[in-house]
Amino acid sequence: MRAYDLILKKRNGEELSREEIDFLISGYVRGTIPDYQISAFTMAVYFQGMSKKETLDFTLAMIESGDTISLQEIPGIKVDKHSTGGVGDTTTLVLVPLVAAAGVPVAKMSGRGLGHTGGTLDKLESIPGFQVDLTGAEFFRIVRETGAAVAGQTGNLVPADKKLYALRDVTATVDSLPLIAASIMSKKLASGADALVLDVKAGDGAFLKELDQALALAEAMVEIGEGAGRRTTALITSMDQPLGRAVGNSLEVEEAIRTLKGQGPEDLVELCLTLGGQMLCLAGKAPDPEKGAAVLKQLIESGKALEKLRCIIEAQRGDSRVVDDTALLPRARHTLEIRAGRDGFVQRIKAESVGLSAMMLGAGRETKESEINLAAGVVLHKKVGDPVSAGEVLAVLHTDLDPGSSQVEAARQLLLAAFACGPEKPAPPPLILGRVDRHGAVRY
Amino acid sequence: MRAYDLILKKRNGEELSREEIDFLISGYVRGTIPDYQISAFTMAVYFQGMSKKETLDFTLAMIESGDTISLQEIPGIKVDKHSTGGVGDTTTLVLVPLVAAAGVPVAKMSGRGLGHTGGTLDKLESIPGFQVDLTGAEFFRIVRETGAAVAGQTGNLVPADKKLYALRDVTATVDSLPLIAASIMSKKLASGADALVLDVKAGDGAFLKELDQALALAEAMVEIGEGAGRRTTALITSMDQPLGRAVGNSLEVEEAIRTLKGQGPEDLVELCLTLGGQMLCLAGKAPDPEKGAAVLKQLIESGKALEKLRCIIEAQRGDSRVVDDTALLPRARHTLEIRAGRDGFVQRIKAESVGLSAMMLGAGRETKESEINLAAGVVLHKKVGDPVSAGEVLAVLHTDLDPGSSQVEAARQLLLAAFACGPEKPAPPPLILGRVDRHGAVRY
Repeated sequence: MRAYDLILKKRNGEELSREEIDFLISGYVRGTIPDYQISAFTMAVYFQGMSKKETLDFTLAMIESGDTISLQEIPGIKVDKHSTGGVGDTTTLVLVPLVAAAGVPVAKMSGRGLGHTGGTLDKLESIPGFQVDLTGAEFFRIVRETGAAVAGQTGNLVPADKKLYALRDVTATVDSLPLIAASIMSKKLASGADALVLDVKAGDGAFLKELDQALALAEAMVEIGEGAGRRTTALITSMDQPLGRAVGNSLEVEEAIRTLKGQGPEDLVELCLTLGGQMLCLAGKAPDPEKGAAVLKQLIESGKALEKLRCIIEAQRGDSRVVDDTALLPRARHTLEIRAGRDGFVQRIKAESVGLSAMMLGAGRETKESEINLAAGVVLHKKVGDPVSAGEVLAVLHTDLDPGSSQVEAARQLLLAAFACGPEKPAPPPLILGRVDRHGAVRY
Repeated sequence: MRAYDLILKKRNGEELSREEIDFLISGYVRGTIPDYQISAFTMAVYFQGMSKKETLDFTLAMIESGDTISLQEIPGIKVDKHSTGGVGDTTTLVLVPLVAAAGVPVAKMSGRGLGHTGGTLDKLESIPGFQVDLTGAEFFRIVRETGAAVAGQTGNLVPADKKLYALRDVTATVDSLPLIAASIMSKKLASGADALVLDVKAGDGAFLKELDQALALAEAMVEIGEGAGRRTTALITSMDQPLGRAVGNSLEVEEAIRTLKGQGPEDLVELCLTLGGQMLCLAGKAPDPEKGAAVLKQLIESGKALEKLRCIIEAQRGDSRVVDDTALLPRARHTLEIRAGRDGFVQRIKAESVGLSAMMLGAGRETKESEINLAAGVVLHKKVGDPVSAGEVLAVLHTDLDPGSSQVEAARQLLLAAFACGPEKPAPPPLILGRVDRHGAVRY
């Protein structure tokens, strides 16, 4: 077999076999197939796409390039959740204790990543003492004893994806739907969960702006998950305005705690109950997602979900007093407000601009080497549809940078420009836009 | 400027500017842009194509990557000829002395190349003593004194093409029409001729099998040539059966000598007179190509063309007695005949199979390192349309290999299978299929 022939075959729109895909992926990881052949191949995939079978085979070949995690020793059906990323997405911090409180074991491997804020690991590290670097044995013990744990990835999971993504990133071949689906799903499937709930974001703050694209990606990922024998459900959810009110690391932890106390922002609560309902349903703990959501709502109201968070924090050696006193979380030295210029209603909040503003304040990483500021970020006081009066606070910036610096001023301007206000009350923006499972896709 | 953005731009079907193309080509040659970005770019070009302007800019940028040759010190309009390559293409060996005899200076830089036989340099080297490694000064002196010279390329002509072609060759991006056109034309334009006649082959033995493709390539090349200020005419000619009767190195020299004596095979004579007529016309030595062809026919009949060949051979220190006694050329130790199985007419001779057969006998190079056998090859005794009787010789194989070897047997079988005979006399196959110049394209 020669890489040349496989590039040619894909270029000509033919379907590659599992053996051919294995040859490409394993050769690339071993270094016997050079970057310049794989970049030509991925550009051919950009134009010719991959069939469902090829996309599954590609994902499986990537998984086989490295270690996989077995969750066998944890009893029960393990359900994982993945979000394609947005602005102010606090769902993981809420869902881990919430779903665990319902008796679904959550063995969550998470990352740090690049973005407007840190990843789930960074956010959790804003809880004083919280340890995310667990050994495999510790991780499993905590899941068994507490019902949930969140840790950094151990082992060499999907090295093919790391190498391939770095190459795609510099050759304009990132935005190929089958390659995106294979990249996400290879990492999720390698992490060993029995079932998956995917939260595919669409809108201004998501990497897929259009609903059609998000639906297509969700379909491709569900095909892969089901093809790999894992029950998989995807929701398409709106990322037109930021989710919830907090965008930052400790700010989002604070918001998660408030949400588990029953005081969360409406959209974040709705999304957590909907995703969590799906998770319970896949775990066999609820007959349908709606009943699952009702169970979870009750767990919030009874305080059991908050209690579960406290247990997880303690098990991972964090200061669980933050649950009662969020002032123990890192706080920025400075806050700056932005205010409405006139009376009216918030028509729109551009999620991407809010995210960039938080990033400029220090909340996120631009490169792998960037230092993250756990206290920095943005809190929205108004969301789309809210009435505002002239002079009323729209949002607050939290930063440790000099408030007079041009960087903070730029973040402030960006945040102000993210808001559009007008005289008419807009229709309430939909949150859940569609759903995909093995029976097909539905738009709401 | 970043290579990434230019890959993206091309991937999205946008047109690159001259500055952007220069950035890519010069960065690639200098090594500041890596192979893996250029291979992704060329694959994007494969799918999105290049506009006429981009193709010209790409060609000019490639030319500027290295040295160019000036033919200024040779008086008159210098016309070069280029063929896209086929099987048994002896035209250069005939045209150089023929056109020179008409007073058009021919300063021919040629190559060796890979293929069924060697290149023009290899063929000429089968003349004992013939020197193709000339210094620049020698080359110009011989052109001035003799009217023509054929030498290997000196200087670092179009290094961008060398590097890019090697990359395209291993990434399935060779068959992109604008990249092919730019590759050929960059080398021709860098060689300094004032005008160009292109012989674009179409058919079984050509790399473009379809007439439409050949026409499109001819149009792209004429656009480039004219865009670079060089008068350019292209003919599309048939390569369905081999041209002439000889396929090999010394065998083709012998055929060229015979052709200059007025005893050449009909199709080779017709093609040489047609191409040569175009060259004379571009050189201002004939009012139209037909009158140019008539002049050349006369030069063959008068013996002046053969005399010119003798002068060139002498000037390049070869043994000019071969003109009178072709037995002085290398001869293979063994000849094997293939014969017709029944009476009828030759319906078809697959040019590519004949070429491969000659190559297996040792006439060509598979890799740059292959040794070439100057005496090996194939001579066709019958061509399409010829009547044959059962047992009559169709073709003769010439080889220095053991006639009983499996290699020679395979070549014999391949050659035999190249012939298709049948009871009906086929229509005479057309030779000149179309013509492209600055006024447009015509199919015949």
